[in-house]
Parts: sequence; C-alpha cells; structure tokens
Amino acid sequence: MRTLIKNGMIVTTESEFEGDILVEGEKIKAIGENLNESAEEVVNAEGLVVLPGGVDEHTHFNFSFKSATTRGWETSNAAIAGGTTTVVDFCNQEIGKGMIESVNNYLQKIAPMAMCDYSLHGVVFDPSDKLFEEIPSIPEIGVPTIKLFMAYKGMPYHCDDSAVFKALLAAKDAGVTIMVHAENADMIDVLQKLCLQKGQVDPIYHAVSRPPVVEDECTTRAIYLAKAAGAPIFIVHVTSRGAMEAIRNAYNEGMPVFGETCTHYLVLDTECLAKPNFEGAKYVCSPALRSKEHRDALWEAIKKGWLKAVSSDHCGFDWSKQKHLGKGDFTSIPNGAPGLQDRLQVLWTEGVAKGKISRQRFVDLWATAPAKINGLFPRKGILSVGSDADIVLLDPNEKGIITNANSYHQTDYNTYEGMEYMGAPKKVYLRGKLVYDNGKLLIKEGQGKFVPGEPFGLCYRGA
Amino acid sequence: MRTLIKNGMIVTTESEFEGDILVEGEKIKAIGENLNESAEEVVNAEGLVVLPGGVDEHTHFNFSFKSATTRGWETSNAAIAGGTTTVVDFCNQEIGKGMIESVNNYLQKIAPMAMCDYSLHGVVFDPSDKLFEEIPSIPEIGVPTIKLFMAYKGMPYHCDDSAVFKALLAAKDAGVTIMVHAENADMIDVLQKLCLQKGQVDPIYHAVSRPPVVEDECTTRAIYLAKAAGAPIFIVHVTSRGAMEAIRNAYNEGMPVFGETCTHYLVLDTECLAKPNFEGAKYVCSPALRSKEHRDALWEAIKKGWLKAVSSDHCGFDWSKQKHLGKGDFTSIPNGAPGLQDRLQVLWTEGVAKGKISRQRFVDLWATAPAKINGLFPRKGILSVGSDADIVLLDPNEKGIITNANSYHQTDYNTYEGMEYMGAPKKVYLRGKLVYDNGKLLIKEGQGKFVPGEPFGLCYRGA
Amino acid sequence: MRTLIKNGMIVTTESEFEGDILVEGEKIKAIGENLNESAEEVVNAEGLVVLPGGVDEHTHFNFSFKSATTRGWETSNAAIAGGTTTVVDFCNQEIGKGMIESVNNYLQKIAPMAMCDYSLHGVVFDPSDKLFEEIPSIPEIGVPTIKLFMAYKGMPYHCDDSAVFKALLAAKDAGVTIMVHAENADMIDVLQKLCLQKGQVDPIYHAVSRPPVVEDECTTRAIYLAKAAGAPIFIVHVTSRGAMEAIRNAYNEGMPVFGETCTHYLVLDTECLAKPNFEGAKYVCSPALRSKEHRDALWEAIKKGWLKAVSSDHCGFDWSKQKHLGKGDFTSIPNGAPGLQDRLQVLWTEGVAKGKISRQRFVDLWATAPAKINGLFPRKGILSVGSDADIVLLDPNEKGIITNANSYHQTDYNTYEGMEYMGAPKKVYLRGKLVYDNGKLLIKEGQGKFVPGEPFGLCYRGA
Amino acid sequence: MRTLIKNGMIVTTESEFEGDILVEGEKIKAIGENLNESAEEVVNAEGLVVLPGGVDEHTHFNFSFKSATTRGWETSNAAIAGGTTTVVDFCNQEIGKGMIESVNNYLQKIAPMAMCDYSLHGVVFDPSDKLFEEIPSIPEIGVPTIKLFMAYKGMPYHCDDSAVFKALLAAKDAGVTIMVHAENADMIDVLQKLCLQKGQVDPIYHAVSRPPVVEDECTTRAIYLAKAAGAPIFIVHVTSRGAMEAIRNAYNEGMPVFGETCTHYLVLDTECLAKPNFEGAKYVCSPALRSKEHRDALWEAIKKGWLKAVSSDHCGFDWSKQKHLGKGDFTSIPNGAPGLQDRLQVLWTEGVAKGKISRQRFVDLWATAPAKINGLFPRKGILSVGSDADIVLLDPNEKGIITNANSYHQTDYNTYEGMEYMGAPKKVYLRGKLVYDNGKLLIKEGQGKFVPGEPFGLCYRGA
Repeated sequence: MRTLIKNGMIVTTESEFEGDILVEGEKIKAIGENLNESAEEVVNAEGLVVLPGGVDEHTHFNFSFKSATTRGWETSNAAIAGGTTTVVDFCNQEIGKGMIESVNNYLQKIAPMAMCDYSLHGVVFDPSDKLFEEIPSIPEIGVPTIKLFMAYKGMPYHCDDSAVFKALLAAKDAGVTIMVHAENADMIDVLQKLCLQKGQVDPIYHAVSRPPVVEDECTTRAIYLAKAAGAPIFIVHVTSRGAMEAIRNAYNEGMPVFGETCTHYLVLDTECLAKPNFEGAKYVCSPALRSKEHRDALWEAIKKGWLKAVSSDHCGFDWSKQKHLGKGDFTSIPNGAPGLQDRLQVLWTEGVAKGKISRQRFVDLWATAPAKINGLFPRKGILSVGSDADIVLLDPNEKGIITNANSYHQTDYNTYEGMEYMGAPKKVYLRGKLVYDNGKLLIKEGQGKFVPGEPFGLCYRGA
Repeated sequence: MRTLIKNGMIVTTESEFEGDILVEGEKIKAIGENLNESAEEVVNAEGLVVLPGGVDEHTHFNFSFKSATTRGWETSNAAIAGGTTTVVDFCNQEIGKGMIESVNNYLQKIAPMAMCDYSLHGVVFDPSDKLFEEIPSIPEIGVPTIKLFMAYKGMPYHCDDSAVFKALLAAKDAGVTIMVHAENADMIDVLQKLCLQKGQVDPIYHAVSRPPVVEDECTTRAIYLAKAAGAPIFIVHVTSRGAMEAIRNAYNEGMPVFGETCTHYLVLDTECLAKPNFEGAKYVCSPALRSKEHRDALWEAIKKGWLKAVSSDHCGFDWSKQKHLGKGDFTSIPNGAPGLQDRLQVLWTEGVAKGKISRQRFVDLWATAPAKINGLFPRKGILSVGSDADIVLLDPNEKGIITNANSYHQTDYNTYEGMEYMGAPKKVYLRGKLVYDNGKLLIKEGQGKFVPGEPFGLCYRGA
Repeated sequence: MRTLIKNGMIVTTESEFEGDILVEGEKIKAIGENLNESAEEVVNAEGLVVLPGGVDEHTHFNFSFKSATTRGWETSNAAIAGGTTTVVDFCNQEIGKGMIESVNNYLQKIAPMAMCDYSLHGVVFDPSDKLFEEIPSIPEIGVPTIKLFMAYKGMPYHCDDSAVFKALLAAKDAGVTIMVHAENADMIDVLQKLCLQKGQVDPIYHAVSRPPVVEDECTTRAIYLAKAAGAPIFIVHVTSRGAMEAIRNAYNEGMPVFGETCTHYLVLDTECLAKPNFEGAKYVCSPALRSKEHRDALWEAIKKGWLKAVSSDHCGFDWSKQKHLGKGDFTSIPNGAPGLQDRLQVLWTEGVAKGKISRQRFVDLWATAPAKINGLFPRKGILSVGSDADIVLLDPNEKGIITNANSYHQTDYNTYEGMEYMGAPKKVYLRGKLVYDNGKLLIKEGQGKFVPGEPFGLCYRGA
Repeated sequence: MRTLIKNGMIVTTESEFEGDILVEGEKIKAIGENLNESAEEVVNAEGLVVLPGGVDEHTHFNFSFKSATTRGWETSNAAIAGGTTTVVDFCNQEIGKGMIESVNNYLQKIAPMAMCDYSLHGVVFDPSDKLFEEIPSIPEIGVPTIKLFMAYKGMPYHCDDSAVFKALLAAKDAGVTIMVHAENADMIDVLQKLCLQKGQVDPIYHAVSRPPVVEDECTTRAIYLAKAAGAPIFIVHVTSRGAMEAIRNAYNEGMPVFGETCTHYLVLDTECLAKPNFEGAKYVCSPALRSKEHRDALWEAIKKGWLKAVSSDHCGFDWSKQKHLGKGDFTSIPNGAPGLQDRLQVLWTEGVAKGKISRQRFVDLWATAPAKINGLFPRKGILSVGSDADIVLLDPNEKGIITNANSYHQTDYNTYEGMEYMGAPKKVYLRGKLVYDNGKLLIKEGQGKFVPGEPFGLCYRGA
C-alpha cells in the first residue's frame, strides 16, 4: 500500500517547505517536490501543515489516587483524535512483584485495547533491593525509563531519597533514564494539615499547600542526587520558574539534567482552582497550576529548549464521581486532569498561532524530543525517510471551540472547555494507515503496537 | 575588686589601640590611655594582645553516639585554659519530655560542675506536636536556639523535613533561631551500606560515604525549608564550598540565612582519616574533613563574613575505648573530636599569624559574632564598657607545639597534636576574676554561670 | 584642656552603650562608665547619641562644569554644622602640571580657609606618561587616592580606558587607590544628541540620556580594567542595581572592588528632574537620580556592606545663575547638587529612624568606613581611645524640616528642602574643640587641618 | 540535468538515515529510500556521509593590515576543495564612500572571479552620520549584516562605542544584524607598548598583549550597548570562556545575543605562537589563540549551542613576506591565518571523529546555523527539498595528514600543517553541479553566484 501526500507544508525541527511525502507500507519512503510516484492513495495536502504524529510521553491510563482509578486504554482513541500516534504510559510496579513481571502483565492487558502505538515507563512502588538489582535488565523488555514519585507522602508509590539515589546508581550503566515527580512530600504534608486544621478544605488549598517552593526544593534535591550518583535525570512536569532554572543551570554546568512541562501548565492559572461549586476540583493536579510569572518562564523555557517536551500528563478522572471524593477535603481529590486529545490544539494555538514558538520548536516539543527522550527516535517523532509513517495533516486556519462533546476520553469534563482553537487535525496516519479522517475515527482496539524504547536516550547523549 | 590591665594592645572588631582596661567587679568599667585609676590589681599587659574571652557556640558535653557518651562538664576547664569563657552547649531533649523540662534538668546537672560561663541550645529528639507548641515559650528559660539533626538516619535525634519545617514555623514569631546539622541522611545511609558491602570498613570510608554533595544538598534544602516557612535559619559546622555558597547566595538574595564553620575544617585534611593503625578514627566527625579546595573556600568565607563564627564542635570521645567501637565498621566510630581548648591557638596561628585574617576578623569569629548569634551580646563577646570582664591576654610571640599533655579535656588524644602554635594565652579573666594564669588554672567547679540567651539574635537582626 | 562627655549613648560599628568619653587635648583619652575624672568642661549627654564626627569622602569645593564653578572652602562650615568633621575633597590636576604640584598649590589655597579637617583625592586632567610616573610618589604628600572621570566626553577631565588602565598599573604597588566615575561617555553623548535633535531640552532628559545601563556597563568595564591590572578599584557614587551587583559579585569572586553611594541616590527620585519651572535643574547630577527599584537596591547594599560608605558628592552650584546656564539645553546644566550639611540628618532619618539600617551600620557608612577607605583610620572615623576627638552629640528625638534658611553652603537652594528630619546634631567637637553648639558655629576659617591619607587603605586590606 | 545520489548516510541537524537524494537542476528535488527516479548521473554514495555544502560566514578575501593585503578571490577554489560552497565575505566600506556603493563596487570586482557562492557583510570604516542613515537600506542590496571592529586602536576600521551604539540603533528596525570584533582596543594598546618597551618583540607577545580579559570586557560591553539600543548583536570569533559565558548568560536573560567561534580556536594552543624561528608569526590572529581551559569551554559551547557556528576567519597572508613585516615588532605582524579549505576536516576530525560533537551538531555549526544567521536559509545550509543542491560526499574513514601541498589558498603555509585528519570530501556539488571530484577541482572563475542575505536572520528570530 502506497500513499502520496502532496503539496503540504512539511514541517520539521530544522525547516519547512512545500512538498510531497510518499508512504509505503508503514514507513515514509520519500520526501520531495512533485514526486513522480504512483500510489494507491493520493492525498492533496495543499494549504495543510504536515506534522509528525505526536508523541505524548506522559499519560496515565492506570493511575490510582486513593480509591479512584483513571479511565484506561479503552480511551486511547483520544490520542488519535488529537494527532498523537504514540503515548508513553506509566506502568506501575505491582507491589511484591518485580518491574519486568509488572510490565509484562501490563503489556498483555494493553495489547487487545490499544488504539495508538505505545511505549512504557516503569513506576516504582516497592523500592526493595530486588528492584534495584532488576533495573539494569529492564531495557531488555523495551522499557528504558523508570519513574519515582518523590511527592505523595503516605501513598504506596512515594519514594524517599534512598530509593531515588539507589535507582540512579542502578540505572546509569544500563542507560536507563530515571524520571522523578519532584515535590517535597514532607512540606506538602505539613501544609496540607495546616490547611485542614484551619478548615481550609476547598480545591484552591491544593495550590496553597503546594507552593512553587516545594517543587523548587525537590527538583534541586533530585539534581543533587543525580550528581552524587553520576547519573542523568529527567524531571517530569516542571511548572515553576525556580525548578526550570535549577534544571537549566545544572545543564549549563555540564550535568545531564533535563525536564518537560505539560500543556495545562502553559495555559491555565492557579485561579482555575478557585472556581465555585467545586468546579475547581477539575483543575486539581500535581504540581498545582501556577501564576503568570511561572507560565511566562515555562514558555521561555520551551522556546529556548531549557525544557525539552510538552506532554499532557493525561489523567482521566471523572468530576461528578471521582473528583467529588474530595469534597470537604481537598487532599482527597484525585490528582490529575485529562488532556491527551487537546495537546495538539492547545500548544499549536497558544504557541504557534499566537507567535510564542516557531513551527520548528512545536514539532520538537510535540514529537521529536519526546521520541528522543524515550528511545523511540528516529522510528517515531520525525518526518524522515525510513521513519514510521505517523503523520498529521493540520489545517492551520480552522477555528473553533474546545468542548467535551468532541472528546474521546470518556471523562465528564474537558480541562480546556471553552478555549478557542486555531488549527485542527484533518487526517492522522498511524504507520501509514489513515486512522482519523476529518472528525471520523477509523481505528479499532488493538491496532496500536508496542514500541520498545532503546536505552541511552537523550539524557545520555545530550541535546 | 578593681583590676587595671595596662598598656595592652586592645583588639575589637573595628579597631585596635594600645591602652588600659579598668575592671570593676564583674564588668569592664573603662577603657583609656594611661587611665588614672586606682585598682587592687594592676597588670602590665605591655606586648600582649587583649582579646575578649572566647564564645564557643558549639560544644557537646553530653552527646551520645550509639553506646558512647562524651566527656562532660568536669572537663569544662579546658575552655578556660583555651581562653574561652563562655560555651553554648547542646542540651538534648529527653525522649518523651518537653524541651523546657529537659533544659531545666540539664541546668541543674550543670550548675555544680561548670567552670566556664554557659548558655544552651535545645536539641530536638522527639519532634511531636507538643514540642512545636512549646518552641515559642522556650526563650522564657533563656534558650533562644533549637537545633535539629537532618543527618544520622536511624539515630533517635534524626529529624525529617516535616520536623524541620514545623520547627521553623513555630520558631519565627518568638525569635527562636533554628539551627540544623545539614547532611542528607538517606544518601549517607546508602553510601555507608555500599562501602560496608564492599568490605570498606576503615575510617577513611567515613569521608567517602559523606562526600561534600550530601552537605551541599541538605544545606540547600534547609534554606528552602526556611524560605517556605519565612523564618531565619542557621547552619552549623559548614564545611563544603557548595554549602557555603548556598548560604552566601541566599543571604545575598535577601534571606536571613547564616552559618558557622569549625576550627578543624579550616586546618585538617581528609587525608587524616587515612592514618594507619586506626589513628584515622580520631578524625571521624560529621561532616567529614574536606580537601584543600574546600578549606580555601572556608577561609575566604570567614574572612569576608559569609560564615559568621568559628566554633570547636568539641566532642570528648576517647580513642582507645570509644573510637575503637568502630574498629572493623567505620559507621560505629563515635562522630566527633575534641577542640575546645585549642580553638584560640589554632585560629590565631593559622588565621592571624599566617596573615589569612585580620585581628579584627579574629575577634569577631572567636567571640563577638557567636555572642550575637546566640543572644549573649553585648554582655559577652566584646571588650566594651559595661560588658562582662571576660578577657584574654595573649602573647602573640610565644611559640610551641600543641600536645595532649597540656590538654584539660580528659580525652586520650588531641586533634591538633604536633601542630606548631604562634601565640598563647597568658591570663584569662572570667567576669573580672583571674581564672588562668600562665599555665595555671585558678578555677573551681560551679564557678561558671548560666547566661540566658535573648531571642531575636543575629539571624533576625541581620549582620 | 579636658572635656568629659557624660552618660551619652556611645555608638560604634560594633556596639552601643551608655557611658562617658574623656577628651584630653585633641584626642579621646578614655571611655567608661561614670568615669571618675576631672575635666575643665563636663557635658551632660544624657539622652543624646554620641557619634564619631562624620567623614565625607566625596566633596567638590572646586569643580567646574563648562563656565560654572562651585562654591569653595568659604562654605566648609556647612560640614561642621552637619556633624562632618573631615572632608575628602577632589583636587584637580592643573593642566600641564603634575599632580604633586597641583595638590601642593591647592593645599596652600585651602589652608587659610578650611573650617573642617580635610584630606584630598587627586583628579586626573592630563593623563600623560609623566602623570603615571608620578603616581607611585603621590602618597608622599598624603594623597593615596586618585580619581578618573570615565564619563563626560569632551570635558578636559574625561579619561579613556588607556588612562584608567595605566593609572591602575601605576597605582597598585604604591598602595594608591584608583577611583572612577563610571558612566559610558560615548553612549551618553549619543543619547544626549538624540534628545537635543528631538527638541528634548528640559532637565528630565538629563536622566533619559543617562539610563542605568550606562553606569552598569562602565562599572563592569572599570572592574575588568582593574582585574587586568591586578589592582584594587573604588567606584564612586554608585546608583544603579546593576552597578552595585557588579561590584558585589566581583568582590565575591575575590577581587578587591569596592564602592560608595551618596545620600541623594538613597532618597530622591528621577521624578525630581521633572519638576516644573526649571526646578528640575536643581537635581541634575551625575549619575542621574534613579527610580525606586534602584534606591531599594542601594539601601540593601549599604545595609549589607556591599557598598561601603555614603558620601554627599557635595557640589555648590547656584540654581538662579549657574543651573540656568542650561536652560534650553540640559547638557549645559552644571552637574551636581549641595548636600554636605544634610548628610547626617538625611541618612539618620531615612536610615536609622525609619529602621532601614542599624545605628552600627550608620556609624560605619557615615564615618568609619570612609576613614578606612581613605587611609585616615583610626585617627578619624571612630570613637576610640587615641583617636581624634571628633565627636557629634545628636538628639535623636528632635524633629524639624530641612530648609535652605538653615544651610551654610551659600547656595540658593537645598536639595532636600522640605524633608522632615528626626534627629539633629546638638554639639560638634573637632579635635576636642567645641565647634558647633546648638545651632551656633564656633569656628573660624583656617581652623581645619590637613590630614594626610595613608596608602594601602581599605581597598588593599579588604573589609 | 538530474543527479541521483544513492544510499549515502544523509545527515541533517535533526537526524540521519541511509537514503537517496535526487537533484534536478540547481535544487534538491527529493529525498528517499531507493528512489525510483531516472537521472543522467547516478552516484553510488554507499559508505559515504552526505552533508550540506558548508557555509563559512567569516572570510577575508580583502583584508589589509598595515601594508599587507590578503590573497583574494582567485583563491576561492580553496572553499570548494574543502566542501564549503558558500562564503560570507567581509566587504570594507571605502573611506569617504557609502556602504552601498562600496558593496556594489566589491560585487563587481568579485563576479568574474568567485568560484564558490557568496554573500557579504559590510564592514564599517567611516562611521559618519551618513553611514548610519544608510544602514536601514542596506538589506535592499542583499547585505543584512554589518561588522564593526571594536579592536585595533589606530587602524582606520577601529570604531569607538559611539559608532557601535549608533549602528545598533540604526540597524534594529531594518532587521540588520550588527556584528562586532570585540577586544578592548585601549587595553591592548597599553599592553603592546609595555611589551615593546621591555623589548618583548616576538610573536608570543601578541598573545601576552591580548589576554582573555580584553575579550571578556569588550564582549560584555558590546552586549550592554546592544541592550541599551534594544537591538540584537552577534559577536564574531569568540575565543575565551568569559566572553562565551557573557553571551550565554545574556541570551539566558532574554537578550538576542549570539556568537560564533572559529576552527583554530578549537584546536590550536597559545603555545603555537612561541614556535622558534618566527614560525610563531603564522599563528598571529586576533583574538589570540588560547589555552586548553578556553578551548574546552568553546567545545562545550558549540556542543550545547551557546555559540552558533564555526567559521574559518580565513585570512590569506604569506609568512615569508607578509608575516615577516612584523619581525622585530609583533604589532606589525599581519593578523590572520588561512583556514577556509581546512574547516571541514578539522572540525569533523576533532569534533565528530573524536566524539566531542554529534554529526547533527556538526551539520548545524558547519552549514545550517551560519546560513540562518546570515539570512541564506533555507536556500543554503540544509539538505532539504527545494534547497540549493550544495552537497558534500564525505568518506568518514579516509585518513591522512593536512599539508600545504594540497591547499589551494595560495599562501605559503598551512595553519594546520601536519595535523592528522579522519574523513575527507570525495565529491562536492555546487547548485547541482559537480565541482570537486576526488581531489580534482572542476570549477572555473566566475561560477560562484552572489546569494543575497535576507534581513531579520537568526539574531532576530531567536534560536
């Protein structure tokens, strides 16, 4: 099967030009001007922007917060509808089991359901010596990244400095990238209790009890741990100016320290948490949404490459049932918000259409860099000869309003409800196959494939 | 009783000049040139340097490390012999008891024994809510400083970030200064176990398992905790360039963050720990001794005021019995070394005589600043009218060798054994009374008095 | 002649206490409590603050700007009336003559007129090789400081980088301190011409054409020149945050770089230059007055010692005649404003009385540090045994309004007109002689003495 | 005419892959795997690396130093032999003439001679008001970059701060990029004279009289000038750690400040200037060659993108005649060294082959970034559909020794003589035409074309 996509504006991290892309089977076969090639399918992309399929390196299809669990792989079509062809999902270590066993179990579960391609991060739940012994072998199953939660005191997945330090020591020679959620768990715990003692129970106190300083501190600490271990480190969902600068400065001093941010931290304000009628709970995620000062710093950071990627940190919790578990006690509101389907439009609209970042930077943040970080490059994340034909045709002139009615995440609200977008995906190809066509999903469960990540990704090779 | 000390070179933090000091009772009554005053005792101080009696803000007369406990107040004459007229000792909270009760118990125990004046820091052992409620009242008993150990995982006095943060929050409105021993307990624990696993049991591995980065990290963390609490903080025994710079930079950015270093960190090298025949154990203290790079940074820091004081961190553990508890396992060597008597000569010789610091800076580091830090100023720490007549007459030209034979600490070794000194105390006055005269101690147990510290010391008023 | 000043609150840079000062002849003889001494004159200083006489290290009794020349030594009683007992005045090199000859000529001129004690800085006008050969001998005539103007393109005293660099090279071995007025002359020249081209001729354009960046740049450049020469450097009248930070950072990196600021930069705003009816011209001085952001930085800098002294930069230009030379062309307004008499009250009121700096810091900024910088210490600048009995008795509770009616500078306006003060000098002693008594000047011309400065001052010995 | 280059390893700034490039006429028509296209010429590139033709943004075919003038355009085949298909040469403003007239004159002169494509920078010689009025129109003739020499006191092209500042003000709205050679002319002048006075006349004193601090200072000053003007700035041939960090820090603080370095600063040491028998003169260029500390900083800078490009700063002066003009007086040695032909091999060997930079970074430094900086992108500097078919086929395994015998620069020495290379160009295409084939040049004079630069290049759009 050959598809010829003609006369689109092909955008890469280094350039852009009007041209044709020839797809053969699952791969990109050629890129050129007026390619003189036959194809079963010829698509006129005139006026459209041709982007690599998105790589969302931070999704939670299986995250539990107290008694609530997120929506799962049955909603992975939301990725496709939003132009994301590959997700890197978090696979929790099952308590008492090894990481490899846990990953294998999870892969089995995913296989029949996945509607986009996927890779996995392991998440430490049981930081025993056995786990650390296992880490060097983890790349063998195609998982070269391990995340530890430094936040969430009292949760099973909370890890202390010993665990992070041991993980770093275990990871480095095998090229495994250690990732951390960096917020000071103790400080948050003290602040949460202070709030509750004072009767401060509403969602806004989620932000009050997680001020930027808890992230600044923990990010700095994570960097020191990495420095002491002589290992690279990757900080997920960076949200504060201080944390971003700590990463940038460590990198400038020669340390292999990197980070990402997420869509919502770029466009939403702390004030969202103060919405009345418990609407604020929709915006409860960790770290908390920040003020303009921090958002400005994040935009500067993604423009200049101080943060490498923009992920969704997608967490499909319902508002009406699950978020309401924390009514009267913000510490019981499940942390997380959906965003998988909206990453493309939010980042394109607010970043590219409003002139904050170039289309080259967009492609990098959206697809290329996350593919590199997670060892999926150049198979994923790039419009290049020989790469997987994951392609998005975007109409940069289409305007509209984001609404949950158009969302596939099976959650009862949309984090970006009401936001105007400028630019919309018209066609999405997954490994050469048209899976989204002008509002219609053409995909079935199980069609997504596991893409093993290679070790020694971006954090080892530098940027 | 009046004493007239004539024609000495009187040194203060701002100046120096040849002159007389008139002491009346326990106080300095006048300072002048050729004072025309009668006195029972007239002392010719020609050729001698006249200094305020030393204030050693960091002594441990009651510190336990596993089964070993330091020598106690029966050795407090070592202070007098070394020109230190006031110590600020660490009083441990008794487990299950409040800090006030613990301090009162300790004061009762000390009263009949003390041979120098003294003030106290409280040390947190039991970080319960009750303790934090008590902190604001602690100044009432004359204790305006509370120390927490962030190091020493597994020890009863180890405090986590919650405890430090709560202590800071409790302290600030009452003017209590929170002090911390800042080393990352988890990292050390991991590194110690790695060493032991590899059979690395000798004293030098104490330093290997406590690299500067553990101090850099924890100092930085302590500063973040203070920032989040909006409280001042004081870092005890700073030893690494990174930690010093973290303190300096925080101060420069407007935060009330301060620190001290200790005599041994200025003059001894990590290599001491590698001495054969378990001699290295004599130098096991925490943080560990550092390399020249760090010592140079510390000298610069005390010269420029980035660190405020030089204390002894005196810990009287025997080598033959107590240090040998860690033979075959460096983690069991009691941490600490004696130095109370030697602080004057070591800092004067290496600092003043060798031209690294001025005599003005010496006076500040030795007496004035520690008095200010601990709320004892201007009663202590200064040669000024109305202040306690704690006076040292020092012969700047006397040379000799430091040896344990001349030490009063009742410990079987001297940390500075064999070091040449230039400058020696000839007479020491405690509140107007001659207590040391040319090698002879003229003091008896119980003569030392408790000096209550005032809250809102240097860390609150700035410097 | 002996004077006994009793029961005042004696303030030094390290402490303060109620006590007596015994003056004998020109010197301080003793300081004590209830001094039991006879004296011809006994002064009750109860309720008064006893300060060292001020040292104003930056006055211009002989500065010319185009055709205008400042008021001269006949107005030096303004110093005494303001508690300043010593000034360090700028002595211009006469064109075609050596510095030593120029200083000697100036000293001859001053001697019969001076009403306060004085020392001198040389000012380079003719940066010939001969001058640089002379610099090492300049301390022989009691002048250890040389100033160069990096600003003022086109003026005879403007010096380029070659001159500054050569001066630094010539000065260092002789312990001469090079001082610079640091503003980028070229940038100002371009900006001034741009303003004039646009018809922007009013006084406010003085500030517009001298933005902080011209000072930031030139200060940084001066520091590089000093670094390349391996010499200390002192930056006069620092006014911008950037310049201050450049000095602080260089010092922190180990370079002997220091600076002062002036009274008016701490309390007056750029907006003064916008006063109508050419009143703005009264505030035309260089560097220009700054905004609040910079003033805040300056207060922090003098509090923390990042800038060492506060001088007046006194320039007695008349408004009605001299300032009006620049009516219709701000570049012709003589640069400078009077402030010699007001330094005490402005700095005390805005600094001490309003709680921005301690009384200890005040004494340092006002007298001690400038005496050290200029090699006059400990003869001047300190209330200490053996020092000159230059003493101010200040009533800290007296309130009033600053007005030119009470000024002795013989200039037709007061820079601080209408400012409320809190604290006023009641008695001033110059070398033991009462020269100001409750509003009355008791001094005659020629009573002031030349105080030779010693080389190797503060900039060489550090701080 | 169509050429099909098959199965090479195509390297871009974002990726690399084995594939084919189809060239049609002067342009790249398609890139693909096993392209099924007919072509007159099919080239087997198996085992070869396919790179974009180099863009050397810093060449001097017409530079005069006192009485010596460099070799000219008759040697531009050296570019082709070294894989550089486009140079950006410096066009001197003729004294008394405008820049546009000067450029037009120069273009006329070049046209019949050029053997590679070329663009131009204007160089200011006569910084009159007329020139600054002309700057905004300069893009109209295809020159969007203007260089000023801040160094070289006494030379006709030396510019003071006024000139640089005016140029920046004139340039910004027109998108003209101001470039500066940043060394403090005054300091160098003083140091040169000091050397000569002491009889220090050998080439090594060139380096002694131009220490890194003269570059650090002037770079910092240039950045301040740009900041004050609100304009971007580009610093050419950055060589010192301090200058590099000044650029990086300014960029990090949000200023559009950029810089390049040159091949020789990455690989040659100051010690070269000390070679006996006046051989040192071969290495006299400005800034001077640096020590390892600085070279390490430069490698880090180009790896991380803190400096954008690596140019040759090619200056074809003869050693036997021209360099010898400075025998006995290093200040008369013509400044500059040849390097145009060697840039590819030196940077590839020392950078890529030795693992210091990736092939992606190489492409950027070598071609892509300089094309962007000078407004030539995407026509030049990239292997992309629609771009000029400037292509280098490099054999990465060929080893050999650099020697002047193989050089086309018509200069009597090679700066890199004797250096081992790993990697050599086999074929070079200029706009689709084979111009170099395995050691043979297939090009004739006049074949090179002028490529107008677009304004608003990299310095305006960021990176």
